[in-house]
Amino acid sequence: MSSAPSVSSSITARLHVEARPTVVSELTTAIEGAGGLVTGIDVTASGHERITVDVTCATRGDQHAEEIVATLETLPGVVVDRVSDRTFLLHLGGKLRIESKVPIRNRDDLSMIYTPGVARVCEAIARRPEDARRLTIKRNTVAVVTDGTAVLGLGDIGPLASLPVMEGKAALFKRFADIDAFPIALDTTDVEEIVRTVKAIAPVFAGINLEDISAPRCFEIERRLRDELDIPVFHDDQHGTAIVALAALMNALRVVEKELRAVRIVLSGAGAAGTAILKLLLAAGAGDVVVADIDGVVHVERPGLAESLRWTAEHTNPRGLSGTLKDAMVGADVFIGVSAPNVIDGDDVARMAEGAIVFAMANPAPEIDPVEAAKHAAIVGTGRSDFANQINNVLAFPGVFRGLLDAQSSRITDELLLAAAQALASTVKPEELNPTYIVPSVFNPDVTTVVAEAVAAAARADAEPT
Amino acid sequence: MSSAPSVSSSITARLHVEARPTVVSELTTAIEGAGGLVTGIDVTASGHERITVDVTCATRGDQHAEEIVATLETLPGVVVDRVSDRTFLLHLGGKLRIESKVPIRNRDDLSMIYTPGVARVCEAIARRPEDARRLTIKRNTVAVVTDGTAVLGLGDIGPLASLPVMEGKAALFKRFADIDAFPIALDTTDVEEIVRTVKAIAPVFAGINLEDISAPRCFEIERRLRDELDIPVFHDDQHGTAIVALAALMNALRVVEKELRAVRIVLSGAGAAGTAILKLLLAAGAGDVVVADIDGVVHVERPGLAESLRWTAEHTNPRGLSGTLKDAMVGADVFIGVSAPNVIDGDDVARMAEGAIVFAMANPAPEIDPVEAAKHAAIVGTGRSDFANQINNVLAFPGVFRGLLDAQSSRITDELLLAAAQALASTVKPEELNPTYIVPSVFNPDVTTVVAEAVAAAARADAEPT
Repeated sequence: MSSAPSVSSSITARLHVEARPTVVSELTTAIEGAGGLVTGIDVTASGHERITVDVTCATRGDQHAEEIVATLETLPGVVVDRVSDRTFLLHLGGKLRIESKVPIRNRDDLSMIYTPGVARVCEAIARRPEDARRLTIKRNTVAVVTDGTAVLGLGDIGPLASLPVMEGKAALFKRFADIDAFPIALDTTDVEEIVRTVKAIAPVFAGINLEDISAPRCFEIERRLRDELDIPVFHDDQHGTAIVALAALMNALRVVEKELRAVRIVLSGAGAAGTAILKLLLAAGAGDVVVADIDGVVHVERPGLAESLRWTAEHTNPRGLSGTLKDAMVGADVFIGVSAPNVIDGDDVARMAEGAIVFAMANPAPEIDPVEAAKHAAIVGTGRSDFANQINNVLAFPGVFRGLLDAQSSRITDELLLAAAQALASTVKPEELNPTYIVPSVFNPDVTTVVAEAVAAAARADAEPT
Repeated sequence: MSSAPSVSSSITARLHVEARPTVVSELTTAIEGAGGLVTGIDVTASGHERITVDVTCATRGDQHAEEIVATLETLPGVVVDRVSDRTFLLHLGGKLRIESKVPIRNRDDLSMIYTPGVARVCEAIARRPEDARRLTIKRNTVAVVTDGTAVLGLGDIGPLASLPVMEGKAALFKRFADIDAFPIALDTTDVEEIVRTVKAIAPVFAGINLEDISAPRCFEIERRLRDELDIPVFHDDQHGTAIVALAALMNALRVVEKELRAVRIVLSGAGAAGTAILKLLLAAGAGDVVVADIDGVVHVERPGLAESLRWTAEHTNPRGLSGTLKDAMVGADVFIGVSAPNVIDGDDVARMAEGAIVFAMANPAPEIDPVEAAKHAAIVGTGRSDFANQINNVLAFPGVFRGLLDAQSSRITDELLLAAAQALASTVKPEELNPTYIVPSVFNPDVTTVVAEAVAAAARADAEPT
């Protein structure tokens, strides 16, 4: 799977080349021969004898890029001037900017947006704190909070190195939900300290999106912040993943004509994402879920069962299975993986029930090669953008927060998460539904609106006095 | 002084008016008769018998605005539909927005700014943390940090109500120095907690601007953060004010042809701003500074001298004065006030030396009516925009931070603050200098550049190994 060149590892090489008729085809042939994929060629300067050409090509990564450059250097009459990396070029100076919404052209403008005029606005908020949602950026601002301990598949790389991801997340918030999000990358991994810090900086924010914080600390941080803050706290790695996975499962079950209540589900992974998926599955009415982690199937009798798995053991596995993940898969209708690469194979999928659904969501390498899985399963989904059915959090968090902000919500409930999943599932129309289209594209413009409306309605219902 | 209508308290009244020829002049006459200043009239709809008019006028404040509206309501054939406040309209939804610098049009864009491409950028920073200044928003991002305890002249109004000021400050950072600044309004007033919080959120920022934190806590917070962070920490209420006051004084002394080393300076106020001004005056070579606070002249023998004033007592007052502020002013060359309204009067200024300089900087009401001061002093400056010589922090902080960020500075030194003051003073050319023009306009486009270059040079000199 990793053998396909990716645009995310594109390079642009500036070449000085002898001006001969076949030169462009020679370059593309050489790059393709070395396994690269040419995506652009621009002649940027031309003389009588030499031309300057910028060639952009997708590669399989840094080492492959070096091989391609080495190949170009061996071509007669070609001089490699410099090589730049498109992804790095895009990141120069960071991916966000903060703009003033108000013009500052003269003293009159200054006197309204700053002293002395601003004082009256401050006094109004001091009298009615709820006016901060009307008169300040609190109305539309979310914190993307991390401690850098579980960033993508990279693990504990620290707050500074996590920034490109957090900025990217903020850029997605803007692009998909017109939300102003700011990255807060914390220079501490202490639970108490993280809770205290987020509480201290909360006034300017209308919501907190926790991101890439390792388990089990992420559970306590989320629980504490939910208890102690009056704005919603959402851990995207948990609840965003759970919403999209449930929405995808709802639609997949429609395709294979099975009921959530009746199917046997095997869930591989008992970390942050796995636990959140489990809870949402149960809240949605799933009747038979078996969870497996690195030590095999979770059940109440398992020797040395960790305290954090007790709740899981008590609320799953109604048929009292034990043994390995592979054992549990025999006869299962659904496999959902948020665990590790290559923990199952084609034989395991072949032993599942007729019309099997396989969501292999480990990133970047899934629990099973999706091509292999598709030989035996009716429906396959992954977290990858280069296969059908990408189960991608971008489908959930923008709409969820848009709805939370629009309703000025103070908390997140299971009902709200369920409503988000149902709304997301509904964006695939019955006539569109098929085994390769169970979730919409992230660029489907309806997704955010539909999810946001459902979430806002759930939040308003929750806020009503009962 | 407060009798002049201000644009910062403008209202727009929507009126339905009988369509008679004299109606517009009747409206303006009525508003002017009530003390308002008409700044705009727009007919927004017209019929055979009635027109709809939006009248905008500057007022002296909320009560005055109500009087003007009441006056309009008494006019025959005039119905007041609704009244809106321009300053509040400008603040709806807050004054900042966060934008993505990168386009997100398709999956290829997503794969570069987010997973999987972003992982390579994260790894690069994990290997070389200093690359965060190149590949993330850290390069150009500053935190505007407050706890809301000393906001403008409003005092301790808390973090939420302080937000309009902090957003305004961030808007000024953008407007005058193209810096991305984000407001951090802290829900704690505990020194230890503030220090811990700012340290925890520091990774994304290249500088910290402390704002409107009450004394004496602001001193310890600044000192602790400077010791414990590797990015510069600047308390604008102290150092920004000090830079602009010193620059103004340097130019004022040129006008009256006196030397900083030789003049007698009386400084009213020993709080955050006063202490910073004092230290910068001494660093610049001032030889005779007498400080007075609410208990009179500060000297080592003063009964019950607060511990925080001991340093001041030991480093000022070379002639061993005691008594009141007014006593100290007799024969003084310079008065600098950062204290309270109306603590001196015209007689006090009359008793100063020939060619007296009076900077009455208390906000919003100065230590003396500047019109009164100007009867006796050669040069008068205030913090107000409606008099000559506005000693405004906007002249300093944008250029200071621009220089700090450009030099990737890790700390602020006295030499750097002095360099900023000298650079700011130099933006008034010798041929421009006169008693009503000792500081440039905040809209002078050279100011930020000149200050930034001087600060960056000082920062680079400081960073060089000695």
